[in-house]
Amino acid sequence: MGISAASTLKREGRQEKDLLGEATVPDSAYYGIQTQRACKNFDLSGVTLQHFPQLVNAIAMVKLACAKANQQLGLLDDIHADAIEAAVGKILDGDHHDQFVVDMIQGGAGTSTNMNANEVIANVGLELLGHAKGEYQHLHPNNHVNMSQSTNDAYPTAVRLAVLLKHGDLVKALASLRDAFAAKAEEFSDVLKMGRTQLQDAVPMTLGQEFQSFASTLTEDIDRIAGLSELLKEINLGGTAIGTGINTDPEYARLAVGHLSELSGFEFKRASDLVEASSDMGAFVLFSGMLKRLAVKLSKISNDLRMLSMGPRCGLNEINLPAQQPGSSIMPGKINPVIPEAMNQVAYQVIGNDLAVTMAAEAGQLQLNAMEPLIAYNVLESIRMLTQAMDMLKNRCVRGITANRERCQELVDQSIGIVTAVNPYIGYENATRIAKTALQSGRGVLELIREEGLMSEEALADVLSPANMIRPQRRRQ
Amino acid sequence: MGISAASTLKREGRQEKDLLGEATVPDSAYYGIQTQRACKNFDLSGVTLQHFPQLVNAIAMVKLACAKANQQLGLLDDIHADAIEAAVGKILDGDHHDQFVVDMIQGGAGTSTNMNANEVIANVGLELLGHAKGEYQHLHPNNHVNMSQSTNDAYPTAVRLAVLLKHGDLVKALASLRDAFAAKAEEFSDVLKMGRTQLQDAVPMTLGQEFQSFASTLTEDIDRIAGLSELLKEINLGGTAIGTGINTDPEYARLAVGHLSELSGFEFKRASDLVEASSDMGAFVLFSGMLKRLAVKLSKISNDLRMLSMGPRCGLNEINLPAQQPGSSIMPGKINPVIPEAMNQVAYQVIGNDLAVTMAAEAGQLQLNAMEPLIAYNVLESIRMLTQAMDMLKNRCVRGITANRERCQELVDQSIGIVTAVNPYIGYENATRIAKTALQSGRGVLELIREEGLMSEEALADVLSPANMIRPQRRRQ
Amino acid sequence: MGISAASTLKREGRQEKDLLGEATVPDSAYYGIQTQRACKNFDLSGVTLQHFPQLVNAIAMVKLACAKANQQLGLLDDIHADAIEAAVGKILDGDHHDQFVVDMIQGGAGTSTNMNANEVIANVGLELLGHAKGEYQHLHPNNHVNMSQSTNDAYPTAVRLAVLLKHGDLVKALASLRDAFAAKAEEFSDVLKMGRTQLQDAVPMTLGQEFQSFASTLTEDIDRIAGLSELLKEINLGGTAIGTGINTDPEYARLAVGHLSELSGFEFKRASDLVEASSDMGAFVLFSGMLKRLAVKLSKISNDLRMLSMGPRCGLNEINLPAQQPGSSIMPGKINPVIPEAMNQVAYQVIGNDLAVTMAAEAGQLQLNAMEPLIAYNVLESIRMLTQAMDMLKNRCVRGITANRERCQELVDQSIGIVTAVNPYIGYENATRIAKTALQSGRGVLELIREEGLMSEEALADVLSPANMIRPQRRRQ
Amino acid sequence: MGISAASTLKREGRQEKDLLGEATVPDSAYYGIQTQRACKNFDLSGVTLQHFPQLVNAIAMVKLACAKANQQLGLLDDIHADAIEAAVGKILDGDHHDQFVVDMIQGGAGTSTNMNANEVIANVGLELLGHAKGEYQHLHPNNHVNMSQSTNDAYPTAVRLAVLLKHGDLVKALASLRDAFAAKAEEFSDVLKMGRTQLQDAVPMTLGQEFQSFASTLTEDIDRIAGLSELLKEINLGGTAIGTGINTDPEYARLAVGHLSELSGFEFKRASDLVEASSDMGAFVLFSGMLKRLAVKLSKISNDLRMLSMGPRCGLNEINLPAQQPGSSIMPGKINPVIPEAMNQVAYQVIGNDLAVTMAAEAGQLQLNAMEPLIAYNVLESIRMLTQAMDMLKNRCVRGITANRERCQELVDQSIGIVTAVNPYIGYENATRIAKTALQSGRGVLELIREEGLMSEEALADVLSPANMIRPQRRRQ
Repeated sequence: MGISAASTLKREGRQEKDLLGEATVPDSAYYGIQTQRACKNFDLSGVTLQHFPQLVNAIAMVKLACAKANQQLGLLDDIHADAIEAAVGKILDGDHHDQFVVDMIQGGAGTSTNMNANEVIANVGLELLGHAKGEYQHLHPNNHVNMSQSTNDAYPTAVRLAVLLKHGDLVKALASLRDAFAAKAEEFSDVLKMGRTQLQDAVPMTLGQEFQSFASTLTEDIDRIAGLSELLKEINLGGTAIGTGINTDPEYARLAVGHLSELSGFEFKRASDLVEASSDMGAFVLFSGMLKRLAVKLSKISNDLRMLSMGPRCGLNEINLPAQQPGSSIMPGKINPVIPEAMNQVAYQVIGNDLAVTMAAEAGQLQLNAMEPLIAYNVLESIRMLTQAMDMLKNRCVRGITANRERCQELVDQSIGIVTAVNPYIGYENATRIAKTALQSGRGVLELIREEGLMSEEALADVLSPANMIRPQRRRQ
Repeated sequence: MGISAASTLKREGRQEKDLLGEATVPDSAYYGIQTQRACKNFDLSGVTLQHFPQLVNAIAMVKLACAKANQQLGLLDDIHADAIEAAVGKILDGDHHDQFVVDMIQGGAGTSTNMNANEVIANVGLELLGHAKGEYQHLHPNNHVNMSQSTNDAYPTAVRLAVLLKHGDLVKALASLRDAFAAKAEEFSDVLKMGRTQLQDAVPMTLGQEFQSFASTLTEDIDRIAGLSELLKEINLGGTAIGTGINTDPEYARLAVGHLSELSGFEFKRASDLVEASSDMGAFVLFSGMLKRLAVKLSKISNDLRMLSMGPRCGLNEINLPAQQPGSSIMPGKINPVIPEAMNQVAYQVIGNDLAVTMAAEAGQLQLNAMEPLIAYNVLESIRMLTQAMDMLKNRCVRGITANRERCQELVDQSIGIVTAVNPYIGYENATRIAKTALQSGRGVLELIREEGLMSEEALADVLSPANMIRPQRRRQ
Repeated sequence: MGISAASTLKREGRQEKDLLGEATVPDSAYYGIQTQRACKNFDLSGVTLQHFPQLVNAIAMVKLACAKANQQLGLLDDIHADAIEAAVGKILDGDHHDQFVVDMIQGGAGTSTNMNANEVIANVGLELLGHAKGEYQHLHPNNHVNMSQSTNDAYPTAVRLAVLLKHGDLVKALASLRDAFAAKAEEFSDVLKMGRTQLQDAVPMTLGQEFQSFASTLTEDIDRIAGLSELLKEINLGGTAIGTGINTDPEYARLAVGHLSELSGFEFKRASDLVEASSDMGAFVLFSGMLKRLAVKLSKISNDLRMLSMGPRCGLNEINLPAQQPGSSIMPGKINPVIPEAMNQVAYQVIGNDLAVTMAAEAGQLQLNAMEPLIAYNVLESIRMLTQAMDMLKNRCVRGITANRERCQELVDQSIGIVTAVNPYIGYENATRIAKTALQSGRGVLELIREEGLMSEEALADVLSPANMIRPQRRRQ
Repeated sequence: MGISAASTLKREGRQEKDLLGEATVPDSAYYGIQTQRACKNFDLSGVTLQHFPQLVNAIAMVKLACAKANQQLGLLDDIHADAIEAAVGKILDGDHHDQFVVDMIQGGAGTSTNMNANEVIANVGLELLGHAKGEYQHLHPNNHVNMSQSTNDAYPTAVRLAVLLKHGDLVKALASLRDAFAAKAEEFSDVLKMGRTQLQDAVPMTLGQEFQSFASTLTEDIDRIAGLSELLKEINLGGTAIGTGINTDPEYARLAVGHLSELSGFEFKRASDLVEASSDMGAFVLFSGMLKRLAVKLSKISNDLRMLSMGPRCGLNEINLPAQQPGSSIMPGKINPVIPEAMNQVAYQVIGNDLAVTMAAEAGQLQLNAMEPLIAYNVLESIRMLTQAMDMLKNRCVRGITANRERCQELVDQSIGIVTAVNPYIGYENATRIAKTALQSGRGVLELIREEGLMSEEALADVLSPANMIRPQRRRQ
């Protein structure tokens, strides 16, 4: 190659080398040769690491925690440690996230993600130290940034931290949605309506009780998600390649875990069996199972909202969902329940993602689960989508729901189900007969009871008062 | 052990031995030592081979087909071949099915099922030859009954045949259910009602069209199931252990496949790549996927039936499902849509079973899929349950469905959606305005159009005639 | 029909009637007309209630708890309450379980199960009172046995209790399997072997560490299952039809829950929102998700056991699984890993069942989940199968596993992965070069290090001592 | 608002209005108010329509086909029809794809996608006609572009066409991967190796046979995918809102379908029951099930490639996968099977996506499936990921695989499984004894047979010749 060609090449990029040989990396890139190889290898989901800022920040924090532990043990010079700290600081400030370019779906059990972080931190650090990118003799992605680590402990730890970092938004959206339902429960507390079981008219309740049940079911999940997030605080940092801690100092794991807790604000603890922790994906399986449960609940609620608002003329029409967009390109005036429909779809996707997590977890072999990147991707994506969908449901649907009070009352008045309330007074046989007669004749239950003189007006009024039908009551004597 | 104890033992059973040693098998048992070991090893699902008579018959036919091929090639004496034929004949007549005692879920890739068949056929044959059970020197489970075979070709072939044998019942139940829907479509062909999209009132249709859509969607599956069953006719018989055909005569595979076709009445063909065919579960994955599709359709239909019959007073109430049992232990007179509910649940189970099939198929390694018993179990069980559930749905629900004609008409009359039909005549702007006014004022669409004189009475009558609203029509000039 | 025919008929059964009309029930049957209808309606899974004795006992206990509460409130006479108590006592002693004949998969949200229990308890009670079966005026399935209850609170409560009753066996089997792995971990604590990540040779560990990781991962699930079972102790007893407690005394729910706690030994508490609790299946979704997680772990372990025992000559062959049955009908001497294979299949079924649970939970509508019977069936079946499969794995596999110590050592000696241990001493560049040379030349890593004089013999011996390779160590100076 | 403010506003955007009111749309936007509302409503997956160019092109073709039909029927003026044709032409040339901005996951059954297309085509057409964007009186999104259509027929038709348009790439990638395996099968046709069943040594085969089985199994799917794509050619165009064809000319559907066939090159046919076709997602369920089957096969193949390349020193090591990136940040020289690992993960994602499709299909209610956008998203995404992953597997793995011939031969030589080949000559009893002795003593099978003089050298040589062991052979006399 002649001089001019060489200098041209130089302008185009820097040469880096690894186990497999050399390659030219663009000058502008903070990532290095291994990241570049990974990008060529994996063009699959089209979703790269930077799509999840929490994951980028999490792995940066892991790198810093390890550097601090190494520094403390005298394994890493202050100059290297300080450079790493400064580089990580910039990343946590939001810089250089665009350098995290590897596809979320990747072979190698996260090695490419880990090397992407090692390379970016090394090159950012190098510049801060006054060196050029790629002058790794001054700050090496493997020897310094990755010191005492393996992908096999650094990556799983970072994924756990990333989930914890996103977890707050999830819980916040969930709590906020719950509050929106609770507010509607309050607002609708005096709207009497028919309850339905198996889609058939059952007995009366209030619309407030119905909306409170949505709030209640979500409340349970707030607690439960918090509880399960504890599982994610058990990490295998210090286990290195297979959990035996090869190439680490006996004090290292304790120190690194401590620094990570301090940096992140989460109380991490070292897994009691690091070999097990290196391959086990159980925490993600259960956490994803929890997201699935939340998805199931949100889907059920969305189904109910859509059913209660069927109409406007030919359905239950007990509530109105706020209009968010015209509903039809052919039917004038049609408004559709598009927000709950979108919530349903997100729920189905989360359930599908959970299956991908399950299969990936089952496919772990021997001392490592090579499929962890897929697990990370799906768990993070499910959290993200659920969070946004719950905000959507709250802002664009729940808060604007109104009740059709007259319609609700009208359905109660003409219902047969209220015969249940008088059952203890007129007996099961009579009640059944009245119900059948009402149904066949099209007449009202009350009318028939009165006609037969089965109960006094006073008794009827008492038993059938809304207040008495919607909660337990002492039996009238 | 003293003499008397020994002789007691002898009276209790016969001694058999295999690779692992000796064991006593009950005198009454036609199965032998290997079957007995399998029963002790696997007590899992509680469902044994005999639960699927088609599977028992299928494996018996495979044994006979192979014996005939061996006989033809001079490898098996006439006396052995005839004994096998006679024994198989008895099994096909329904005898000895209770001797097929191994759990459907079993390790060993079907070896225990294969040996259960080999041992029962040998012992039944031995008795027919005038020998005692266990005198295998005269007719040996491995050397004679299993000659030229491996579990790895005999078992997959038998499973495919078993599915084909059950497949007729499935298609019959499906066709019969389809006919029931088609009959209702005919019956309801003049019942005008509102169609609904996204659960909101849309435009008119007939109840007949709605029921015909149920019939149509099932019709597609009749054809499709027939089509996919072709995949199951490609078998690996003759491939023996890994598909290379080791220990078989070059003519054997062709002959055995031919005999099996003749015996079963299905046109089997030898897989073109027997190595591939030994480990591939693709035919089951796709067939199970087809059962899943049928389950999805049946579940959708059941959901619709339940929704259309919501009521009796507080729901759509367009149709009545026949009452099959009292609906409530507390609410007098309540009748629930129990039959479609059960159909839904069967559908969900079939979908779950499909996932078990998928995971088992993915877990096949190298030259064999050791998880095939689970695949066989789930496919056969899904067929069985779908068949029974479709009969249930037809007999206990669809045939007894009645229409609430007045209710259907009333909903059409008060609907806003009919404005769609006048849209081409009064314009989208006018139509939207009319729709909004109708909704806000509670007034009728027709009334408003008339009031504004937007269309002549004659034109209105024409456009809104039922016949014109439920199909395409040339635009009035 | 002539007189004699009629009287014959009479001798054959008793007449019962319900909302739908009359039917003849066999004299011998303790169940009644509604149970009989349900049997005709639902012939689906072929698995009836009696297949799960804990479910039968659970619903019997619920009935007794409610009767006691009713008695205490003066709603139920002592004579009726005592008869119910005596009848329930017989059921809990194991009598009459064969009278619980309804299919586990059933429409009606459990109504048929509830009525099966009501009818059997009534008729058993009637006989104990000296009356004939069917003389319900003396003890009525609905008016007395079902007093203050609806299927909608009694059935979900019973299902939760049934799971809790089976839960002990599950945990016991799990703990016992864990102990078996822990014992092997102890036995193999001095067997040095190569660890593998991504199926490639990694760094050394002991076989004891590997087996301890199996024990550790199961230990986590013991705690977790216990934790999640708390969710099941929150019940909706007293909510009746839709959770509003219609037709109950204000004190009733508290009393009934208290009696059930006392009878069962589990500390039940009343759900804080009974409307929510009537339709929510979240506890089952999460519990089933936990069973799925256990299944995933057991499948991963089974995969590992099968891989480590590949051979005998052409695979890893590090361990031997005990032979449980001859492995092949064609290949003499072959032994297969049939027990872990069966464990895998059970795991896949449990994962499939979890999907059925998920779909059924999502399908709950408005005030009730009509699909709960499918949920109950799958959760109970998954617990049962997992319990039996874990016992199988422990007794027929784990306990008999032996190590091939020489083979394990031989693989370590010839491995390249031990270069990782000297990495901190000779540097990453040297280590990589040595590794590549070893791989290409077929020579040993140690040999090459010595040849190049990169480390002293003493240092090498120290760094490569087994004790130092399998845990963290302070770096040699 | 003062003049200057108004003119500022004017510069910022144009005013548009719909059923819900007015909004300002950016001047630069070719989409309109309804698209803009949809963007605000749905920010869920982050993946917008333009991510799937085939979908954009597909819906554009549908619009043009309908315009041509309308023109032919005299319903649409030439000037409007020509403008639509020109606008569609630009989109098909790749212009304006960035204007398709709605999230793939959306409520409304595709209305937002349909309106996004209507609006972009209208505005592009308006500019071509010399009007400003938004001057819809000259070319209206609903009245002209959407004429005779509903989202409910236009969108499902477009999704089917989009799948067909991507389908070619999928089949091409699949065929090309198949070819790569077939080439390797040829290359390895003389490499004798041990076959394994249930991970245990079985009988010999060639590595060529093993790779041919990968080629064969993929060949089946090429045919099958082609077959199933026929289902997608059945469309509901002309059915409008619910399949009744309301507001269309009786000739319209036939004409529109014909034009679409011509434009796209696919032979579409009108569904025989348009009501059924409006809500049925069966074609997607089955097609997605087919993608799942392909994923299962690719995952199985990847598992095998990873297992066969285990090593380099402590595993099977029969083949070498080409190195694509350094394997470890801590273990020098380690190379991992990253490409098949990534393939596995894509497979799991596809299986998860199939579940999302299944649930969405089941959730269709009455006359429409509102969840179709999720179905479209998952099917298109699965096709895309599978296509890219198969290219990756072919280019970065399969083509570079090499065989370790000596290692393969060595394993055959020392195996016990070859005793199967002599089984027919020395008898099952002798063969089993020899196998057991070999295993216990560590000696070779051949050596033991010779020692006992059970077969002549000549016979042994013949029976054990590679050519004879890997296919059926006539028994030596």
